[in-house]
Amino acid sequence: MSTLILLRHGRSDWNEKNLFTGWVDVDLIEAGRSEAVRGGELLRDNGLLPDVLHTSLLRRAITTANLALDVCDRHWIPVRRDWRLNERHYGALQGLDKAATREKYGEEQFMLWRRSFDTPPPEIEAGSEYDQSGDPRYADIEVPRTECLKDVIARLMPYWEGPIQEDLDAGRTVLVTAHGNSLRALVKHLDGISDEDIAGLNIPTGMPLVYELGEDHMPTAPGRYLDPEAAAAEAAAVASQGR
Amino acid sequence: MSTLILLRHGRSDWNEKNLFTGWVDVDLIEAGRSEAVRGGELLRDNGLLPDVLHTSLLRRAITTANLALDVCDRHWIPVRRDWRLNERHYGALQGLDKAATREKYGEEQFMLWRRSFDTPPPEIEAGSEYDQSGDPRYADIEVPRTECLKDVIARLMPYWEGPIQEDLDAGRTVLVTAHGNSLRALVKHLDGISDEDIAGLNIPTGMPLVYELGEDHMPTAPGRYLDPEAAAAEAAAVASQGR
Repeated sequence: MSTLILLRHGRSDWNEKNLFTGWVDVDLIEAGRSEAVRGGELLRDNGLLPDVLHTSLLRRAITTANLALDVCDRHWIPVRRDWRLNERHYGALQGLDKAATREKYGEEQFMLWRRSFDTPPPEIEAGSEYDQSGDPRYADIEVPRTECLKDVIARLMPYWEGPIQEDLDAGRTVLVTAHGNSLRALVKHLDGISDEDIAGLNIPTGMPLVYELGEDHMPTAPGRYLDPEAAAAEAAAVASQGR
Repeated sequence: MSTLILLRHGRSDWNEKNLFTGWVDVDLIEAGRSEAVRGGELLRDNGLLPDVLHTSLLRRAITTANLALDVCDRHWIPVRRDWRLNERHYGALQGLDKAATREKYGEEQFMLWRRSFDTPPPEIEAGSEYDQSGDPRYADIEVPRTECLKDVIARLMPYWEGPIQEDLDAGRTVLVTAHGNSLRALVKHLDGISDEDIAGLNIPTGMPLVYELGEDHMPTAPGRYLDPEAAAAEAAAVASQGR
């Protein structure tokens, strides 16, 4: 038995501006910092203290983790970071306004890009403003030009089966602080959600989602949000983005 | 050739209150957070971008590093933490007022405890308020009851010769964010300072101190503060503490 805690970063500047973010390294807004602190308080008050942290390479996840861990007095735990936990690369949509995109391309295309399992957005143009090629943090990898959720699962799973499961096997309570889509990818696997049904899953920001896992690294019970009421309200708000 | 950057944490709550801190896990004050940000700006403006971070297990060093790295866009680098980078354990003095201690025990004893190479303060009483035995972050070690600088050197050097030198050998620019005395221990080694002369060395808070090292991990030139003028003023202020 081991414990896995998933935490989506607090609201960012571009969540607020309603822009497609993807791999663009935007910062949290003040309300997002408060969400992170609240997430840490929920961990503390529920006695769920992480032994190790895994984050993406993006500021909004890293800062969320720093703030949450500081509050629950776990700022000192080991940290592992990997690009495989990054948000889905939104291709040519990165930096575009969600509502304007929906208006321009229509509801169907918009929802296909946002929620389809295997239809990636158009590729980002190399060297354009929101292309991450050349960023030193990705020096060792080929930066994606676009990704669908299926792509995210493909690059996430080796990290789940490798470093994260190693920590779980060592009996550590693992905190994964990441993004809407990298966490959807992981939850799809853990909850056995079909390629179709995953479209309807929204993960709220700043709400710890806790799984107890068996030796096969699969949940022994459904995952639970530490603040279920707030989580449901939040998920509904996420689902309505771009409306 | 490799680059080592030493950064003492910004001013903490207990620096401000003029208390002996040691292993007590106090927070930065607002001015200390500003120092950390300024440290990161100096790194950024001098093009000295760390590839890897080493910190102690104490909040004031961890937060300083988080703030500095965020400013210079290096929040995503790998992080290694170790108790061997912790501040000197101040024994029974932890939590005591520096000026009151000086008054009670006299200038000579006060300076002996603060700056002597091999005279540790009296041991802390087990189970007393500022004893760290039982803190989960130290579950794998025997927490010191007191330390002199010689003791700090003894526990620091294996970490210097191990994980830090490994990163240097890999060609990484290494940032070590730690404490007045753990950094004095390292600077004593790097600059070949005698057991007597080390008493006169003060390291200012929040000022990056940069060494270029040869293959033998020794400096090829004297270490330099990125803001030498401010560093000199700051060191003078540290030296007068308790006066």
